[in-house]
Amino acid sequence: MKYEIFFKKQLALIERELRSSLRARQTRPLSIHRAMRYAAFTGGKRFRPVLVLMACEACGGKPQDAILGALAIELIHTYSLVHDDLPALDNDAMRRGKPACHKKFGEANAILAGDALLTLAFEWLSGIQPAARAVRILREIATAAGVRGMIGGQVADLESSDKKKTLAEHNFISRFKTGALIRVSALTGALAAGATARELKNMIRYGECLGLAFQVTDDILDQDGYCRILNKTQAVRKAARLITKAKKAVEGFGAKARPLVFLADFLMQRIAHE
Amino acid sequence: MKYEIFFKKQLALIERELRSSLRARQTRPLSIHRAMRYAAFTGGKRFRPVLVLMACEACGGKPQDAILGALAIELIHTYSLVHDDLPALDNDAMRRGKPACHKKFGEANAILAGDALLTLAFEWLSGIQPAARAVRILREIATAAGVRGMIGGQVADLESSDKKKTLAEHNFISRFKTGALIRVSALTGALAAGATARELKNMIRYGECLGLAFQVTDDILDQDGYCRILNKTQAVRKAARLITKAKKAVEGFGAKARPLVFLADFLMQRIAHE
Repeated sequence: MKYEIFFKKQLALIERELRSSLRARQTRPLSIHRAMRYAAFTGGKRFRPVLVLMACEACGGKPQDAILGALAIELIHTYSLVHDDLPALDNDAMRRGKPACHKKFGEANAILAGDALLTLAFEWLSGIQPAARAVRILREIATAAGVRGMIGGQVADLESSDKKKTLAEHNFISRFKTGALIRVSALTGALAAGATARELKNMIRYGECLGLAFQVTDDILDQDGYCRILNKTQAVRKAARLITKAKKAVEGFGAKARPLVFLADFLMQRIAHE
Repeated sequence: MKYEIFFKKQLALIERELRSSLRARQTRPLSIHRAMRYAAFTGGKRFRPVLVLMACEACGGKPQDAILGALAIELIHTYSLVHDDLPALDNDAMRRGKPACHKKFGEANAILAGDALLTLAFEWLSGIQPAARAVRILREIATAAGVRGMIGGQVADLESSDKKKTLAEHNFISRFKTGALIRVSALTGALAAGATARELKNMIRYGECLGLAFQVTDDILDQDGYCRILNKTQAVRKAARLITKAKKAVEGFGAKARPLVFLADFLMQRIAHE
């Protein structure tokens, strides 16, 4: 079954809530809101917010328990793409077949729209109930998005981009740059459901394996990274091993973890025809 | 008495805590930490964190109650300067007599260091106790720093920079771009002290008047903004009126508000010899 069909309900919820939340309480100047919405609606897979919702469900929670965490993580992912595409960073003019945010709205607005999306993510997270849960989720997400997570990985990637990376270096970068936000998506869902310590541990394990598998399969699609450092066959095997581990980590959740198993298998499906 | 002498104890506390917090739990890559520290220690007045501490004291709190809020707001102020100085925005090569962050570390690192400072601010805020207070302070700060605050003002400023601003437009920009973070500094201090509704209201009023007075006196020093839209004499009068209002707002706090009165008078002193 296709990703879009399997997660039809969740994707509809995410689109609807994201759109209405981004439209709420708009103040002038409206141009920044336009740039933020443009960046947030460029046809992404919503992999991270879907993961948040499904991790929450696996731990016995409802979508409404996890929706703020899911949307906030998607805003953080969105801001990171807007800033990564800037001329000073990856200098990408296009994003998913459309002009990158800075090409459409100018560089100044893209920098500020990214800043605003990141700030808004934390504003939304502060609305999670009860407060103790909000604070815990917020701290985990801030750590995963910061220098000890996504930004640290991005800096390490920039620093090593001119030389040939070793496997250890690429592992480090992938764990931080891509892995940290996917890991914290699984953790956020579990925390939003009020999961037990054991459930949290398994969900973190799942998120770590899934996050790294995400990068490996991305590299295989782009014929880059792991695909060049290892080779294609070894990269495919690495992805398969990580996906098996991810699925094993959520075995104990039983039928409620079926969507998480689907998510893991989806990564393998992406590279099936490569 | 000079600002640095009057607030000697508070400034020492802020420098010490900021330095040790920024040095804690450093992970590689270290370059991003260097850029963050460089930006955070370029000889700023620490006006906002001093204000947080003094608002807390006026409401009966201790410095330790407010220090996380004070440092987080200083990080947000710092990130905003790093991003504002970028070539795509104000294109300032120098900041307080030293090379701007992007001149020293390159544009990519300056963008990421700014992002990291903003993210770290929220990580620190999540450490405030109790959780309900953390969440309230965090939401107020996120709102003040975002599109309905500082970033909104910055965008409005960029959009109007080519044309002659009206007084109403410049009031709008100043309230948001500069005023919002100063207003929320006073509010954060009060919230950290567990202030009453009446105390909060008065502290917000004080912060609003102080924030706008800050911009007016800045404009007088730069011979820009209010100084051009009004004229110098009228701008000085406007500053004096706002400072009187600010002091009036904290009259009810009695002797505990003496530092807040000093802070307000300090803004007038800055322009005394202009």
